[in-house]
Amino acid sequence: MAPIIRPVVLSGGSGTRLWPLSRSARPKQFLSLEGRGPSLFQQTLHRLAAPLFDAPCIICNHEHRFLAAEQAREAGVTPQEIILEPQGRNTAPAALVAALHAAGEDPHRLVLLLPSDHAVEDVHAFADAVAAGVDAARQGRIVTFGVKPSRPETGYGYLETAPGDAPLEVLRFTEKPASEVAREYLRSGRHFWNAGIFLFSAEAMIAAFREHAPHFLAPCMAALKEARRDLDFLRLAEEPWRDCPADSLDYAVMEHAGNVRCVPLEAGWSDLGSWTAVWDMHAHDAAGNAASGDVLLHEARNCYAHSTEKTCLTLLGVEDVIAVATRDAVLVAARDRAQEVGAIVRRLQEQGREEALFHARVHRPWGWYEGLERGERYQVKMLMIRPGARLSLQSHHHRAEHWVVVRGTVRVTNGEEVFLLTENESTYIPIGVRHRLENPGKLPAIVIEVQSGGYLGEDDIVRIDDDYGRKAAQ
Amino acid sequence: MAPIIRPVVLSGGSGTRLWPLSRSARPKQFLSLEGRGPSLFQQTLHRLAAPLFDAPCIICNHEHRFLAAEQAREAGVTPQEIILEPQGRNTAPAALVAALHAAGEDPHRLVLLLPSDHAVEDVHAFADAVAAGVDAARQGRIVTFGVKPSRPETGYGYLETAPGDAPLEVLRFTEKPASEVAREYLRSGRHFWNAGIFLFSAEAMIAAFREHAPHFLAPCMAALKEARRDLDFLRLAEEPWRDCPADSLDYAVMEHAGNVRCVPLEAGWSDLGSWTAVWDMHAHDAAGNAASGDVLLHEARNCYAHSTEKTCLTLLGVEDVIAVATRDAVLVAARDRAQEVGAIVRRLQEQGREEALFHARVHRPWGWYEGLERGERYQVKMLMIRPGARLSLQSHHHRAEHWVVVRGTVRVTNGEEVFLLTENESTYIPIGVRHRLENPGKLPAIVIEVQSGGYLGEDDIVRIDDDYGRKAAQ
Repeated sequence: MAPIIRPVVLSGGSGTRLWPLSRSARPKQFLSLEGRGPSLFQQTLHRLAAPLFDAPCIICNHEHRFLAAEQAREAGVTPQEIILEPQGRNTAPAALVAALHAAGEDPHRLVLLLPSDHAVEDVHAFADAVAAGVDAARQGRIVTFGVKPSRPETGYGYLETAPGDAPLEVLRFTEKPASEVAREYLRSGRHFWNAGIFLFSAEAMIAAFREHAPHFLAPCMAALKEARRDLDFLRLAEEPWRDCPADSLDYAVMEHAGNVRCVPLEAGWSDLGSWTAVWDMHAHDAAGNAASGDVLLHEARNCYAHSTEKTCLTLLGVEDVIAVATRDAVLVAARDRAQEVGAIVRRLQEQGREEALFHARVHRPWGWYEGLERGERYQVKMLMIRPGARLSLQSHHHRAEHWVVVRGTVRVTNGEEVFLLTENESTYIPIGVRHRLENPGKLPAIVIEVQSGGYLGEDDIVRIDDDYGRKAAQ
Repeated sequence: MAPIIRPVVLSGGSGTRLWPLSRSARPKQFLSLEGRGPSLFQQTLHRLAAPLFDAPCIICNHEHRFLAAEQAREAGVTPQEIILEPQGRNTAPAALVAALHAAGEDPHRLVLLLPSDHAVEDVHAFADAVAAGVDAARQGRIVTFGVKPSRPETGYGYLETAPGDAPLEVLRFTEKPASEVAREYLRSGRHFWNAGIFLFSAEAMIAAFREHAPHFLAPCMAALKEARRDLDFLRLAEEPWRDCPADSLDYAVMEHAGNVRCVPLEAGWSDLGSWTAVWDMHAHDAAGNAASGDVLLHEARNCYAHSTEKTCLTLLGVEDVIAVATRDAVLVAARDRAQEVGAIVRRLQEQGREEALFHARVHRPWGWYEGLERGERYQVKMLMIRPGARLSLQSHHHRAEHWVVVRGTVRVTNGEEVFLLTENESTYIPIGVRHRLENPGKLPAIVIEVQSGGYLGEDDIVRIDDDYGRKAAQ
């Protein structure tokens, strides 16, 4: 089959519901829940490898642009475009931008709009379901994908369908029902979980907005028309985008649209929308536990335990508990309260805590760094510089830096000198001296940086030249 | 009052029941449960500052000798003696050694034998209770201290007393009663928790051993007689000590002795014998929670949350849970199962896990080090060198080291050179070169050490000279 569908991957979420693993600086979609292997975003791209699909368009927050670009590269995918949102505006504006952008190619262009942070076990069943919606989409329908409920879930939106053959006519969208209603839906056979995936022609979606939510049109069209190219990215124009209302596609359009169809999706779907959903998706042991990472369970029941590499997480005699341990933050939650994790994140944010938003490991276009230790007038960081990448040419007003290379080879600019350093070699950058770190090799380079000085904030950086067009500390 | 009592502090426990905070390399007694302020061992020494008490004798495992000496020094206490046990042999042999050692001064010497890892809120009430036992002890009684039960605890030993005035006659020792029995004891008014504290004359205890447990006499006398001085320590002779049976004082002697008295102790005592006991001892909020360190509780009930400085520990909607987070290990336990933590520690030990025994921060006589990061051919450590202290003169076969001073001033021996390094200065120690690190200043010095090499084990160390008489890696 020729590539007849333009997938548009929505990657704007901040994923606080899986805190502390997911944090807004590197949310859920850019993480692997197993701590290794492809991220959810990359799994989403892999899902779009079927012949049916053209190169994907990605819409993400501009803060995540290097993450999205790097992860796509790593997954071997060349996006048609990476569109940057200056701020998050929920799914409605993103869906309209997706439709408008595709209409620029061809108003009849079929678009598959899908989130970047869901899990789908059966990739073939997924492609088959999408293919089953193509005719309806060509006929101007908006096609949704419905998951048969397996429990009376009150946290999801539902699609109520009319009896008949797939694609089914959708009679109604229902947001998060009461639990009595959810039990009814489970019995009915005509209600499906709304998987948040949509197939439509560009012009059909634009027409739906024009009819049901016309106030989105002007700001979205302006944001796209005045968008400017920034390296490999297309950055939506800030002003019109800022003026665009934030709303979900369901509320703004889908609940009002009459031409909606539903293709049942039986592909092992999960929105991974909370730690409970993650527990639910995993294989369980005989006592109902699921675990990931360095975990030891002793007489635990119906628990989910998740540890990142550097912490040994142990559970003793607990039931129905979610425990997630990362290097700098630990969550212990009742399993039926896991969807309230946002309340914890908000309280940490109110306290100005970095753990609310940032991971210990901070990703940069050139690689990443991780704070190992911080004292009164010093700080120790580990830097990973990707092959071929280089940090900006920079200087600091308040700190000196010692670099010790522990892996690979780097090229160092230190004042007027440029030289190579390899494993077990070091250099010293005095305060005020221009310097640059670059990896000319074929392997990742790791450098231990020891900073010394009266002020050690990330914003004490004077950028003289930067490959990634960054001005301030980024 | 003249100092009429020789306190003997038993500090040989390995404290696994408070894992992961307490680990055998630095057990509970040498920790502050609050993460700052005096350790339980130091609090025990402070408790012995009353005029009643002479300088304390300390009996500890030889592995903890520098910890005990340093903590006593820090507490401003000069011990009469620090006696080292080559291995742990439970409390009976230690009690006999305490009595034999005191009898060397004077057979009538009064000894107060007490654990180093208990909490006592009211220091004056404690001294008063001890004073109230002095006459009975002088008359050859063994005086115990009984805590009035506040709950039907099944984990403690009980003292059954005869009606009368204090010191009460002890009719029977009962180990860990069934819960029905414990409820009876709670009602009786004549049963007390055995606080594990004993007051006696040296000759009375030796006589009790001679009568009820004579097999301890020969090995303990030999171990003490052949003990050798090692710096400031008195090291019991290994061979007789190894042959000495391991048993508790209660089982070996007290349960059989007829001349036992009990002084009620109302001083806010806790044995801190499990996380549940720690929770119990703390002040609780309205929902029954107690917390220590960087903790955020959200609708938790009857929980204990404890975090060391580098981890943000959050609890959401859980009940009756103990959560303890350290840099490298996390425990989440049901509150009524906390006494089973040993099972977790054993399983980790079986897996050869360092977290079972060692903290991330490893204490040495010269200060401490902490591993910050470890990779395939490199390792980053932070070293704190105490004022006046120095590491051994040493060399390594397999690793080179970079040192960056980030705090204070150190004197470095690097091959044939000796020089000072201060904040923001560094040096490089090639493989095989003799080196030494010393703090000649008045402030703690902190050095970041980056090791590079094919083998980075602690045992790759050739000691040429050591202030602390150490041979291998210690």
